[in-house]
Amino acid sequence: MIGIVGAGQLGRMLALAGYPLGLEFLFIDKNARTPGGQVAPLLAGELTDRRLLGELSRRCEVLTFDWENIPVEALEKLPGKARISPPLRALAAAQDRLAEKRTFELLDIPTTRYASVNSRADLDAAIERIGLPGVLKTRRLGYDGKGQAVLRKPADVAGAWEQLGKAPLLYENLVPFDYEISVIAVRGADGALAFYPLCLNVHRDGILRLTRAPFGNAALTRRAQNAARKLLEHFDYVGVLTIEFFVRRGQLVANEMAPRVHNSGHWTIEGAETSQFENHVRAVAGLPLGSTRARGHCAMVNLIGELPPRDPLLADAGLHWHDYGKEPRPGRKLGHLTLVESSARTRDRRAFKALSRVDRATWLALR
Amino acid sequence: MIGIVGAGQLGRMLALAGYPLGLEFLFIDKNARTPGGQVAPLLAGELTDRRLLGELSRRCEVLTFDWENIPVEALEKLPGKARISPPLRALAAAQDRLAEKRTFELLDIPTTRYASVNSRADLDAAIERIGLPGVLKTRRLGYDGKGQAVLRKPADVAGAWEQLGKAPLLYENLVPFDYEISVIAVRGADGALAFYPLCLNVHRDGILRLTRAPFGNAALTRRAQNAARKLLEHFDYVGVLTIEFFVRRGQLVANEMAPRVHNSGHWTIEGAETSQFENHVRAVAGLPLGSTRARGHCAMVNLIGELPPRDPLLADAGLHWHDYGKEPRPGRKLGHLTLVESSARTRDRRAFKALSRVDRATWLALR
Repeated sequence: MIGIVGAGQLGRMLALAGYPLGLEFLFIDKNARTPGGQVAPLLAGELTDRRLLGELSRRCEVLTFDWENIPVEALEKLPGKARISPPLRALAAAQDRLAEKRTFELLDIPTTRYASVNSRADLDAAIERIGLPGVLKTRRLGYDGKGQAVLRKPADVAGAWEQLGKAPLLYENLVPFDYEISVIAVRGADGALAFYPLCLNVHRDGILRLTRAPFGNAALTRRAQNAARKLLEHFDYVGVLTIEFFVRRGQLVANEMAPRVHNSGHWTIEGAETSQFENHVRAVAGLPLGSTRARGHCAMVNLIGELPPRDPLLADAGLHWHDYGKEPRPGRKLGHLTLVESSARTRDRRAFKALSRVDRATWLALR
Repeated sequence: MIGIVGAGQLGRMLALAGYPLGLEFLFIDKNARTPGGQVAPLLAGELTDRRLLGELSRRCEVLTFDWENIPVEALEKLPGKARISPPLRALAAAQDRLAEKRTFELLDIPTTRYASVNSRADLDAAIERIGLPGVLKTRRLGYDGKGQAVLRKPADVAGAWEQLGKAPLLYENLVPFDYEISVIAVRGADGALAFYPLCLNVHRDGILRLTRAPFGNAALTRRAQNAARKLLEHFDYVGVLTIEFFVRRGQLVANEMAPRVHNSGHWTIEGAETSQFENHVRAVAGLPLGSTRARGHCAMVNLIGELPPRDPLLADAGLHWHDYGKEPRPGRKLGHLTLVESSARTRDRRAFKALSRVDRATWLALR
């Protein structure tokens, strides 16, 4: 049995990928109407509830994560026999933007210039040193653009401080970039490494909208994979790890890492020989990794806020529909579409057509 | 919610295929340790329990089947609103080998010569008319070669009668064949039809061992699809239907039909654009059908009786492992392997290699 902390769509897709391997799953989350709770048993409560985490640890061989922002203390010294994968030190580094930047620096992974900000004076000093434009971010619990403010001119500073100043912060330079990519890597319990082809990502309002893969040439791939390899080996990592990069003139700047399967890897369900979800499950269960080879030219379009009418999209041959079973809410990731084509040109044509149907604002911005 | 009567591996794979569509499932079967019960909620009891079937019918929009041999009376006039797909008249015809043969005859689908056998005198008359060799089969509840006896010489008759004579029987001629194929077809609630490429099947001891697809030329495909189309339209069918054929000098002889997804279609999970399981779920839920196009040259090897060591097979890139979560037992289908290759030659080489590792007796018989 594999215990999964958090029963969102990532947990749901982990369980669906792991069932054919003969594995079983047990979630912790608020209730069974969560995406994961609809497909596997669930212990209902807070993700930080030590009693529930202890029960998970007693009943499972390994604990892993749908949501990695669990305070590490809640996960330390649990009763029972369960291993924790990925390791807590990787969670700790990924949870805190300051620790994350320091890890990138330690491993010589190029990243943004940054400063820790704990006071208005820190912020002024940081802007003095790093300059404008920049981004002020909460060190913890940021995702999908939440907990961030872009500072373009001195007049933006007071408002951003007002909005975010109650939490420990990080200020970093706003990197001008040509495009954004991610690398999804996996390390097995035996130390084996595998890398998915690079993903080309489009965000809008801080939320991923479109991913296309495989992307990039050999040099870009080598640089991204080297960064991922360093992190995986540094943490003695087991499972899937993702790094998002800005790319400017072929140079990579690490934006952030996620110690888990990633939205930009959802295309791997249909598009890779073994999905990121299956490979994460294989890794944490101590099984051999599967091939990360792409089956074609793939695209993934997120379904955000509300689901578009399903039937016309289902009737579009080759479009794969993924509904996470969530209630609609503005900005919420409710599902995604995948397509796998034999040429990049057809993939792009179909991906943009799908985008025009389900996310017109992003489509207009990309035209 | 889709209700599934029977929670075997077929039901399990239906639920796993239907979750990404945003659908939920509820099974009836003996207990939650069944393959389906491990991945979805389950009402525990006999498949014929009218009270449980009534609850399923009240809680679900549609009832469908993992196991189609439910007496039709148990399914008639259930309370609640649920549709039943496939229709009961198709179940009734598929449950009874005599009704099945008569349906084939009615629709001009070539089949074996046969006679109904209710007494030893009937059997002697049937052998007199149809000749030896032949097969004596129970009219009901036969699967995987159970409830059958091959009669090659007059001395075999008494033993076969002794073994099977307590149930209504069918005697048919033993068809000499060059090979066995199946066609898997699906009809949507709107009458749309789709057909998977033909499957080439190898049985041993009455149990399917190996399937390869796509198989066959245009003429064979047209004949098989015509037979399937006639059955689907005759029954005003909704869902997946399978026909198994013997092939002799390019001519098809229908062996039997199954009103459900079929073991010979398991390769479609990785090997077709939309799996047989997803298309069955789409059909019974009233959704548009998905593409049945093959993604490559596919093979499926059944794992029977006991599972082989998992890790070396998982480590073989491109071999997909499916474990149904069942206890080992001789002759029992516990799982299957799939592979999808870019050429038939590579597919065959890898399929035979896999067979040599997991089912040596079949491999030796095929060499």
